[in-house]
This record gives sequence, structure tokens and C-alpha cells, in this order.
Amino acid sequence: MYQSFETNSATHAVPGRLSALRELLNKSKLDGFLVPRGDEHRGEYVAPASERLAWITGFTGSAGFAAVTASKAALFVDGRYTVQAKVQTPGRLYEYLPIPGSTYADWLIKALGKSGGTIGYDPWLHSIAEIARAAEQLSQHDIRLKAVARNPIDRVWGKVRPAPPLEPVIVQPVSLAGESAEDKIKRLQQELAEAGQDAAVLTAPDSICWLLNIRGSDVAHNPVVLCFAILPAKGKVELFIAPEKLHDEAKAHLKASAKLFAPGEFKARLQSLKEAGKAVRVHRETCPVWIGRQLGGPRTIVDGSDLCLLPKAIKNKVEIRGMRTAHKRDAVAMCQFLAWLDKEAGKGGVDEIQAAQQLESFRTRTNKLKEISFDTISGSGPNGAIVHYRVTNDTNRRLGRGELYLVDSGAQYADGTTDITRTVAVGKPTEEMRDRFTRVLKGHIGLATALFPEGTRGVDLDPFARRALWDAGLDFDHGTGHGVGSYLSVHEGPQSISKRSMVELKPGMIISNEPGFYKEGAFGIRIENLVLVQPAKKPGGGDRAMMSFETLTFAPIDRRLVDVSLLTVTELAWLNDYHARVYEEVGSRLGAEERAWLEDACRAV
Amino acid sequence: MYQSFETNSATHAVPGRLSALRELLNKSKLDGFLVPRGDEHRGEYVAPASERLAWITGFTGSAGFAAVTASKAALFVDGRYTVQAKVQTPGRLYEYLPIPGSTYADWLIKALGKSGGTIGYDPWLHSIAEIARAAEQLSQHDIRLKAVARNPIDRVWGKVRPAPPLEPVIVQPVSLAGESAEDKIKRLQQELAEAGQDAAVLTAPDSICWLLNIRGSDVAHNPVVLCFAILPAKGKVELFIAPEKLHDEAKAHLKASAKLFAPGEFKARLQSLKEAGKAVRVHRETCPVWIGRQLGGPRTIVDGSDLCLLPKAIKNKVEIRGMRTAHKRDAVAMCQFLAWLDKEAGKGGVDEIQAAQQLESFRTRTNKLKEISFDTISGSGPNGAIVHYRVTNDTNRRLGRGELYLVDSGAQYADGTTDITRTVAVGKPTEEMRDRFTRVLKGHIGLATALFPEGTRGVDLDPFARRALWDAGLDFDHGTGHGVGSYLSVHEGPQSISKRSMVELKPGMIISNEPGFYKEGAFGIRIENLVLVQPAKKPGGGDRAMMSFETLTFAPIDRRLVDVSLLTVTELAWLNDYHARVYEEVGSRLGAEERAWLEDACRAV
Repeated sequence: MYQSFETNSATHAVPGRLSALRELLNKSKLDGFLVPRGDEHRGEYVAPASERLAWITGFTGSAGFAAVTASKAALFVDGRYTVQAKVQTPGRLYEYLPIPGSTYADWLIKALGKSGGTIGYDPWLHSIAEIARAAEQLSQHDIRLKAVARNPIDRVWGKVRPAPPLEPVIVQPVSLAGESAEDKIKRLQQELAEAGQDAAVLTAPDSICWLLNIRGSDVAHNPVVLCFAILPAKGKVELFIAPEKLHDEAKAHLKASAKLFAPGEFKARLQSLKEAGKAVRVHRETCPVWIGRQLGGPRTIVDGSDLCLLPKAIKNKVEIRGMRTAHKRDAVAMCQFLAWLDKEAGKGGVDEIQAAQQLESFRTRTNKLKEISFDTISGSGPNGAIVHYRVTNDTNRRLGRGELYLVDSGAQYADGTTDITRTVAVGKPTEEMRDRFTRVLKGHIGLATALFPEGTRGVDLDPFARRALWDAGLDFDHGTGHGVGSYLSVHEGPQSISKRSMVELKPGMIISNEPGFYKEGAFGIRIENLVLVQPAKKPGGGDRAMMSFETLTFAPIDRRLVDVSLLTVTELAWLNDYHARVYEEVGSRLGAEERAWLEDACRAV
Repeated sequence: MYQSFETNSATHAVPGRLSALRELLNKSKLDGFLVPRGDEHRGEYVAPASERLAWITGFTGSAGFAAVTASKAALFVDGRYTVQAKVQTPGRLYEYLPIPGSTYADWLIKALGKSGGTIGYDPWLHSIAEIARAAEQLSQHDIRLKAVARNPIDRVWGKVRPAPPLEPVIVQPVSLAGESAEDKIKRLQQELAEAGQDAAVLTAPDSICWLLNIRGSDVAHNPVVLCFAILPAKGKVELFIAPEKLHDEAKAHLKASAKLFAPGEFKARLQSLKEAGKAVRVHRETCPVWIGRQLGGPRTIVDGSDLCLLPKAIKNKVEIRGMRTAHKRDAVAMCQFLAWLDKEAGKGGVDEIQAAQQLESFRTRTNKLKEISFDTISGSGPNGAIVHYRVTNDTNRRLGRGELYLVDSGAQYADGTTDITRTVAVGKPTEEMRDRFTRVLKGHIGLATALFPEGTRGVDLDPFARRALWDAGLDFDHGTGHGVGSYLSVHEGPQSISKRSMVELKPGMIISNEPGFYKEGAFGIRIENLVLVQPAKKPGGGDRAMMSFETLTFAPIDRRLVDVSLLTVTELAWLNDYHARVYEEVGSRLGAEERAWLEDACRAV
């Protein structure tokens, strides 16, 4: 199993740890310390050695921030995690504050009062831009931010702190990547030259893995290698990586595109760029302060987005072929699971953990599963209404009759990454459930069938996913779609579909289409397929270049939850066409019993 | 007539004027000069005395910019004006450059070459932010921007330059404004106090007119008074205004809310704020450099939006009632016009100018018309495809059979401002025209019927206006809606409906709903009503506060152009309901013949 169902918060240990941290801060003459959730690379998943926020607060969510002073402490979490934070983090030790809506700088100004003080931070864990903003605000209140040489949490954590991961680097062959590392490097170097920049520092592991055609398993679910790189305007990439991760095959592969350095050599290489007066591109919003300090000031640091971001997001033909294959493979496992679920859940004997285990086991049987792409969200009844629900032994519950079951899951295969959500009726659904499900489906189809001109951004499509819910005075409080990597992170930018998505969609981008509806304490609904942006055939009489989505995901949408009277002719046609396509792609790859189930599930309405 | 149909460009005079300007620049030791279209107040309309761009280039569009050096000159215009610029401005003297896509700073760097130089500008006509950006870029190429004491264009223009307007101030009574100036001032002063600011400088005439409940006629179509004001955190507004504009009634009205100063006293009042070390709020993107210079540096200047902007946009109950009344009055004139047009145009005897004159004359017969709210766009056939078409004696053409006629117009009444567009078939329309018209109508209805949650911005609604066109590979290249003032500017912010509209819509805002379609050289279609943002009744089962639009404009939509087979049931119901409402509101106020026409035009389909 790639997923654990343990309740992994160490709430009980928090008071002792917090006291020990404060003692050390006092000795170090620090009036406080900042504890972000991210690591040096600011990815969504971090290695156990970097779970400092969970260690000091008990809170295990995927985003958050803590600030600690001698007498006060605060935990900042977003709306997804308000409930979880209160359960995991002791309220008598930590104040809970919402993001957005509050900042640690505001909190520190209040917590420290008029006396001011010195707040420590780990320069590896905060970006140049973040610290610049906070320092400016805090300085007006005589509060100083001070970078510490060694993270005090690591010092208190001591010997029991897990070791940083040293998993082996594996090669992503050109047959799957579609473009050699040398060619990718050449493309980016041309861009660097055009911008008059001498080098770029890369800090995002998935960017470096994409660029050098390597993969790894340093963190859960994301097949990346934790490392840093410098891309010079000419010559090979300088890769800073623990030598223990490099075996012969990886070394041989990297020889053509990279010069290998131990992580300890990073500092000297950065400083040499500074000394040579080079113009070095870093992304100030994500680049650690530590790196900025080695590079010097505004004369050498040029702010710019990660050069890999856009070319990584725009998949090439080989990656697209791989994604299609991976999705058809995953569709078999998913259909097997849904068939199994339909048979077993009605008997009342399935719980959320069993369902997640069963789904993973069907994916394992493909013999191609490298990892799951995130912890399966397996939520029945009221648990389905928790958008980022993670089932544990404590929260596990049976799939009850008359309830909805929501399952959001994905797989990592060498040829592609998947992400799919289905909502299934166990027993007879209520009219309210069917109405809400049909409105979510209308939103899903609204996106799936959209034809849109070049220049369209995610923000321009997001409303189509919501209109049918708005019509009923309803909405959902998350984005409608995120970018997905090619055997890389299941959440990747820069494109997305939401109220904040200002990046233009381009052919080759892959994105999720996942509107939802959540009734707190009752049920949750989400319907998610991945879609590929494609150039569209121009309709007769049309006067401009258009794009459309190709749906990559194949698994039936529960027709028992569809109120056909709410669908337009176009919507109904899409649903029936989609189901015909699902049966066509998956049917022949199933056993007789499952095939019969699928045939029924895909019947036209 | 409030509209002239003269071809008002002085193209022939441009060479002589340009030579004279260059001679003066040479004497003044300036290597170039900047000529924006805007005046000190940056409104859409400027007084004849401020038409410097038209004077020096011949170009009479509502937006543009020129830069002149000793040997070169460039005219910057946006896509709406590319064709017009080429006709009006001599290409052998001026290079044409597109906005967006080019900046005068880039052009100057090329035009001046390596030698650098000094470029003059009038500090009254450029904003603090604009000059800061340009100066930074230019300084890297040894080009200096220098504020001139007197605009060299005015010096060359000499005695024939029109005098600045001195039209009388009129009072907008509380019975129409809905809130006294004193109460408005109190509201804004509270905001200033909360922000810790000592004063705000107001430079937008419509903001000052709104705040002090005054109106005027210093510029065409916008009933505003050109003036400046300082709003202190406590006490009366300081109003800087030519004393010639103030008659007894206005003075008596202003006594309670304002201290009156001559424009010449503005400088000393600004400097006294600086000397007292006050924190003064200005909007750096619109505030003239001249004002910034009197106020000093970053210690005294605090950047902030115009405080009047949002309260002016959110109409109060009295303003809303006035807008409704004004629209019903305007609807009578509009229906009379459409009835007249239907009768006369078919005979082949109507041209664009006659139509515009006829429409204005129907509005004049209301006995309430103060002004038209902009030059009527009266375009038949291919002229309808020019989005900002202004008919002149040169471009005037007959409304031909088998053509579409587009008329976009509005009125200024003391109780409200209107803006309406209708597209009418003359003779039998083609199937293509009907298809396109119906798609535009579907977009219009998509907005008119939208129910949307609190927090929705214009950008979140804009796609609904385009979807039916996208479905056919089509689109339109302008925003879908602009804010409208209450007997003020027909284009007012901050809200709008477009790809760039990030301002949340609030109940009380009035906005246009005007999707279109344009086939160059053939026809243009636009359907425009004004709508009012209203809190909506929560649908049964709905779980959040919603808003919707109330349509304010009443005039039939040409059913001969509607392909009913393309409409959904909801869309058809909206159209029939709308027409029933039009007849109900307007029918009884028409003569027998016109009423019969309207009854037919509003028949259900």
C-alpha cells in the first residue's frame, strides 16, 4: 500500500516540544521563530525530515504556517483545514488564524507589543519575496527578522528526526519523455540568451526532473528527486544532488546534459556567479532566501518565472500518447473497482479504508503502477463533504445505504499521471442528491464541450462549471481544475481553471475538470476527468482559431444520480457519447462479469 | 443638435503646425515632446482647448498619444482607431504604432539613438505613475524627461486656441442625488480617518460633481464641471474652480460643504499640506505630476484609489428610482424612433445622419433632455462593423435594403443617464445575419438571466456573453459591459464586464450588457441594455446570498433577426417576457400608430 490510514498527528507531544523550542530560542536570544510547512523546494509533498510544522504543532495538513514567541504561538491554515487544525493542534497553546485574512507579520506585531524584538527564520524555508515583504512591514515596528544558521526545530528534534531521503534516481527514457534533456536545455538556453540572462537557478524538483529526464521517489506520491540546479546560458546544467542517489545508469544518462556536484558545492557555485557579476534569473516568490544571499543583490538577481514551467505544462506528442495510454490502463482498474463497489457496497459491508485499499489493489494489478498520485480521498456520507478528506482509522465509516460515496484518486505510471473523481449512490439517492449531482454534471459537461478562442484563460472557463449551481443558489468553494504532470506532480502549474487562473491555455496542456457540490454534514459530490487542450476544427463560417478539450479519463458517471429532465439536448448527447466511448475503450479489457456491469453502467439514457 | 457631423480633422494643417512646434522645441533646447490626448482630469471627453493631440496630428479619436522629436514623430492608437489614424494623420510625418504592443519610451529610445537627449512634457497632462515608469526606463538610455512650465503646443497654437470652458455650475438637488454632499463627505472622511490619511486630492470631475452634488457642461456629453478638490479628514472640501462658473444658486448650495478657491490658489494649498507633513492620498495612476510635485515625496504622498469611485458606482435608492424613470422616458423616444425607422428605412430614403438626427429629435421632445450621453453611433451595412463609428458627412450612407443598421445612443436626463444599442434589419436579412444576431442575443440573455453569488466580478460573467459565438468559432473584441453614472459619465468605473474586470459587483451598480458581433466590410450587430445589480431572492434549497440583474432599458429587439430554433426554452421565455414588459411600460405612452407598431414588435414568438 502506498497509503497509510494511521492517525499520524503527535498532538500529545506538542506541549513538550514547544517548551523545548522556547528554551532554545531563549538561549539563542531570539524572541520568536517562524515555522512554514514547506521545504527548500516548496513542493506540495515534503519528506518526513521536513515535517517541522507537524512536529511542532501536531497539524498534518498540506498547507499551513506557525509562528512562535516566548509566550504565544499561532497556527495559520486555510478554509480546508480549519476543522482539522482544531483537532490536531492544542488550542491552549496555539491561536488559530485563517489564511487568507491574516499574516504572521500582523500577528507578530500584536504578539510582541511595543517592545519589538528579533524573530528567527530558516533561510532555506522562506522565499526572497516573502521575507522582503515581511521584513519591510515588521521593521516599522522595530521587529527584526534574522536568518539562523541551523533550524532550532531540527536541533530540538535531535537524533529521532528522520534522515533526509536518499532514494535512487531513475531515468525517464526519451521514448516516454519525447524530447532529450539536451534538446530541452537548448530551448531554455535560447530563452535565457534572448532575455540577456547568464544563468537560471532551478529550485523546483519537478522542473529539474522534467528538464533532465529523471525521476525519483524522495517524497510521497510525486516521483521527483530532491535537488537543485543551475542552468547556464551555455553548456551543461550544474546539478547539485546527494551522490548516494546516483547509480551507474543515472550517471551515464546525466553525463550528456549535466555536471554533477554534491549539495555542499552549491554555495561556492552560486558565489562564483555573483563574483563574476552574472545576471542570474531566480523566481523571487519561490527561491529560498539562502540562495538569494549567495547571489548577492539586485545587480545579479533577475526576477523571472521558472523557465521549465510552461514547456513542462505543454505536453509533447509522446507525452500525450503516454497520457492517453496511462488513462486507458487506469480506466480498467477504475471500472473494476466501480463494479466491485456496486456489488459489495449495497450489502453494507464496505468501509472507506477497504474501498481505498481495493482501488489501489486493482491499480496494482495493472503491473505498471509506480505509486498513487496522492492519498485517495475515500469519503462516504458526511465525510464526502470534506473537500480534502483523508480517511484514518479514527474517521473510517461504512458506506451506508441512501448515502453518496465520493472517491478521488490517481495513479503514477511511467507514461502518465492520472486523477479521477467519481461519486456513487449507495442504495437509493434522495431527489436533492440527484438534483445537485445533475447540476455538477452540467458544469462538468459545460467545460468538456467548450469551444474557446486562442488567448482564453482558465478564469474565462470557470463560470461554465458553476452556472447550473448558481441557478439554484449554490456554488462550490474550490477551483475547477488544476494542471497535471506527465509522470510528475498531479498538481502542476502554471495553468488552472479557477477565479484566479490568468494563464492562457495552450494546446498540449492537461488539466482537471472537477466541479463539485458539498452539503456539510450530509454529502459531497465531485465529478472529475482530466482533459487535454487541443486545437479545434474551425466550425463552418467561424473566423478565428479555436481550442477544445479532449477528455482523457474513462469511467462511467453514475446514471442513477442523473435527473435527465435537467439536461439539455447537447448535455444528454455528451453523456451518452461519453459512456459509449467508455465502453468501447474499456469493455474488451474486462472479465465477463465486470464487462456486463460496465455495459449496463454505460447504457444510453 | 448635440452632435456634429462635420469631418473635424485638420489634416492639411498638420505639416505647418509640426514644423512650428519643432522650431520652438529647438529654441527651448528640447529634443522632443510628449502629446497625450487627455487633459488635466483624464476624462474621456476633453474641452476644445485641450484637443492638443488632434491639433498636432489631425487624429480626432478618443484615445491616443503622440511623441515628437526633431526629425521623427509617432502616433500611438489602439485597434479601434487604426483605420481612422491613417486617414487623419499624414503617414509621411507620423509613424503609426499600436497600443498595447508599443510604448513611447521604447520608441524614443530608438528614435533618439545613442545620443540620448531631453524630452519635454506638460506635468499637468501625465500621471505620477506614468512618468515614474517612463523616466526609469529612459534614464537607462541617457534620456531625460523634463517638465515644461508652459505647454509648447499652446504657445504655437497661440491666440486661435479656444479658451478653456467656463460654463455655469448647476445644483443636483438631494431629491435627485439621494444623499446630501455633507453626508457623502462624512462617509469618505471616516474612510480617510480609518486609513490614517489626512487628506485626499480629487482630480476626476465626475467624482467631485458626485461628492458636492453639482453638475456642469464644460465638456461635451458629460455633465461635469472641470475643477480640482482637496478632501481633508475633517471640515469642508476645498474646491478649486474658476469663479466665473459660480452663480448665486451654486454658491449658496456649496456653502455648506465646500470652501471656494480660485484655481491659482491650488498650488499654495497643496504646498501647505506638504509643509505640515500631512499624509495625502492621491491616485498615482491618474494624478498629474504637477500635483505630486507640490505635495513632495513618498513621505507625504500615499497611493490610493479615488475615494468617490465605489460610493459613486453604488447607486442609492433615489438614484435607482431616477434611473428607472429616465429609462422609461428614454424608452418612449427610442420606440418612436424605431417605429419611424421601420416605416421610413424600407422606402430607401433614410441615411445615417438623418437617423441620428431623428433619434435626437424624439429625445428632445421628452422636454427633459439635457444632452446626449455620447455621439450617436449610427452605422448601416459595413459601417456597423466599425465598433466606434462616428458618422460624418464624408462617411454618411443610406440604410440599404438587405442590410443591418446599428444604432448605439444615449441621453443625459437630470434623473439618470441612458445608453442603448439596437440592431435593425432593413428589408430581408440573410441567414448568416440571423444566426449571428441570435447568438449575440443568447449572450445578452445569458447575462440578463444570470444568478450569481456575492463576490462575483465582471470577469466571471463575461464568458456567458460569448459562449454562443464561441460555439460557432466567433467572438467579439470588446468588453461586454461598462459602468454608467447617474446623470454623470456614461462610462464610469470601477466595475465592468470584460476579461479584465476584477472588481466585485455590488447591489446598486449599473452596468451595460452589450455583446456584439462584427463582420468587417459587411455588418455589425450589438444588443445593449443597461442592467442594475440587485440582491436576488434565494432559490429554494439555495445556501448562499445571490445577486441578479434588473434590466432597465425598454425597447423591442428585432424579432425578424431571431432564429427561434437556436433559443433554449429559458431564452425564449426571457425574450417574450421582456417584450411583454416593453409594451406594458411604453405602449400607453405612444400615439395610436406607434402603439400599433410596438404591439406588433413585441408580439410573442
